[in-house]
Amino acid sequence: MQPITRLNQIAERLKQGAIRRIAVAAAEDANTLGAIVRAVNEGFAEAMLIGNRSAIEQTATNAGIQIDPDWIVDAADHAGAVSCAVELVRSGKADILMKGLVNTDLFLKAVLNPETGLLPKGQVMSYVCAVEVPDYPKLMFITDTAVLPFPDMKQKEAMLRYSINMARRFGIEEPKVALIGASEKVNPNFPNTIDYALLSKMAERGQFGKCLVDGPLDLFLACDPASVAIKGVLTPIAGQADVLLFPSLEACNAFYKGLMLFAKGELAGMICGPEKPVVVMSRSESENSKYYCIALSCLMADE
Amino acid sequence: MQPITRLNQIAERLKQGAIRRIAVAAAEDANTLGAIVRAVNEGFAEAMLIGNRSAIEQTATNAGIQIDPDWIVDAADHAGAVSCAVELVRSGKADILMKGLVNTDLFLKAVLNPETGLLPKGQVMSYVCAVEVPDYPKLMFITDTAVLPFPDMKQKEAMLRYSINMARRFGIEEPKVALIGASEKVNPNFPNTIDYALLSKMAERGQFGKCLVDGPLDLFLACDPASVAIKGVLTPIAGQADVLLFPSLEACNAFYKGLMLFAKGELAGMICGPEKPVVVMSRSESENSKYYCIALSCLMADE
Repeated sequence: MQPITRLNQIAERLKQGAIRRIAVAAAEDANTLGAIVRAVNEGFAEAMLIGNRSAIEQTATNAGIQIDPDWIVDAADHAGAVSCAVELVRSGKADILMKGLVNTDLFLKAVLNPETGLLPKGQVMSYVCAVEVPDYPKLMFITDTAVLPFPDMKQKEAMLRYSINMARRFGIEEPKVALIGASEKVNPNFPNTIDYALLSKMAERGQFGKCLVDGPLDLFLACDPASVAIKGVLTPIAGQADVLLFPSLEACNAFYKGLMLFAKGELAGMICGPEKPVVVMSRSESENSKYYCIALSCLMADE
Repeated sequence: MQPITRLNQIAERLKQGAIRRIAVAAAEDANTLGAIVRAVNEGFAEAMLIGNRSAIEQTATNAGIQIDPDWIVDAADHAGAVSCAVELVRSGKADILMKGLVNTDLFLKAVLNPETGLLPKGQVMSYVCAVEVPDYPKLMFITDTAVLPFPDMKQKEAMLRYSINMARRFGIEEPKVALIGASEKVNPNFPNTIDYALLSKMAERGQFGKCLVDGPLDLFLACDPASVAIKGVLTPIAGQADVLLFPSLEACNAFYKGLMLFAKGELAGMICGPEKPVVVMSRSESENSKYYCIALSCLMADE
């Protein structure tokens, strides 16, 4: 399988597989409906729109979006919509959970509920994005943009596994992982670089399967072969990183938003850790990015 | 005075002022010589090349760079070149200190020496960059890319003063400062956001002079008016930030390197805090960026 190098190639790949059922909690906003309908029309997704029937139908009508009344599952209120959607995924009646027009805290609380939620006990929850910019020849899988503020060693290990797993789903057999710092030096002033040295060694020992992991590396050494040559740093990543693991949420967040604004970036992201993909989209994301998030979750839902 | 919005406008502005004298410690590499000669030829700089005379002349000859033998100040070794260059600046015989082909630690140790160096006692040293990308209508002054790993409140206050001061030198009368976080919420999980609330209030009380300071703001709210409208966040920055203050060096470093690689970015940066501008350039910076660093330091050297 050729690796997927652009986000618009995901849908093509999905058409070869089964149709994935997406349960949307409080599907009462036009953006979410629009993105879902596009995925349905592309032929790789099935919609389960949980919420207030008349609110959903009214929203669709106002936005000129064609939905099938059979897609709707009625729910009394937002809390009811969320727990119904989570239960549909939990029981295997849906493959993907997606947040609609509902408070993020309320939504995540239901995902995290130890009795009725989707996160296995002790499992780390983290956010991984596939980012595309015209000036990089492949996708960058970056983590964590949204969930773990200052990941500790255990959390970094989970981030690494999730992002490598995602890269593999995109057809990359031996993902190259760059552990991002401000320079390539292990330095106690930057405690993250110590975790990076450990992760590099673990990878060398085969603890993450077939992949190349190296860090700390700065962004130039991670993504620019010319910088690697100039600096003469020996690294198997060689300026061709697939995965970029960042030391903090703040660092990863500003990085990807910079690329969205100034480098014509697009992205697809999802929450990893729960038993099934969970999609939580920000209001500031582009229409395209929202659709890509759904496509990504469908790719990751495949067994 | 119209604000400078592009880095190539700095030289134009400099031609209106006096010639600034640059003391280069260990001026024995072609990149540094090339950038210096370009600044001299532009008519706003005078070179004082401290180091081994034959090494300097040989480097220039090999690279086809024309230098004047009178520019050279002989020094026995690198340590001698550094202390000579620092002393020239300290005694007022030069206006700017610049690092050539010498170890950065050795160089900074001389700058920081309490008896013979350039940093006043108790003064914070920090790095400020002016970054240009085609898709932003003005320069972004960002800090700290290189010196302060995890700035505390006192260091953030210094970073704020230095970057505001730099923005003013570029003709921005009321700099708009965005204190960058992952979202606009003050949140104890992100201790930096507490410092940001304090800095915002201090600015409101006029403690930084004429400027607008607001944070936490994410990068979209800082630099994208459309995002401000969509999210409905009330902020005087309004998506038009001049200054971006980052919560950590790692965050700022990855941000600017992402823009250099993927957004056709250019930058000019210098160390702030010492009595006179100090230029320390990285090997991975572009030829253009190296020249811009010199131009920036000349602009900042003016009284």
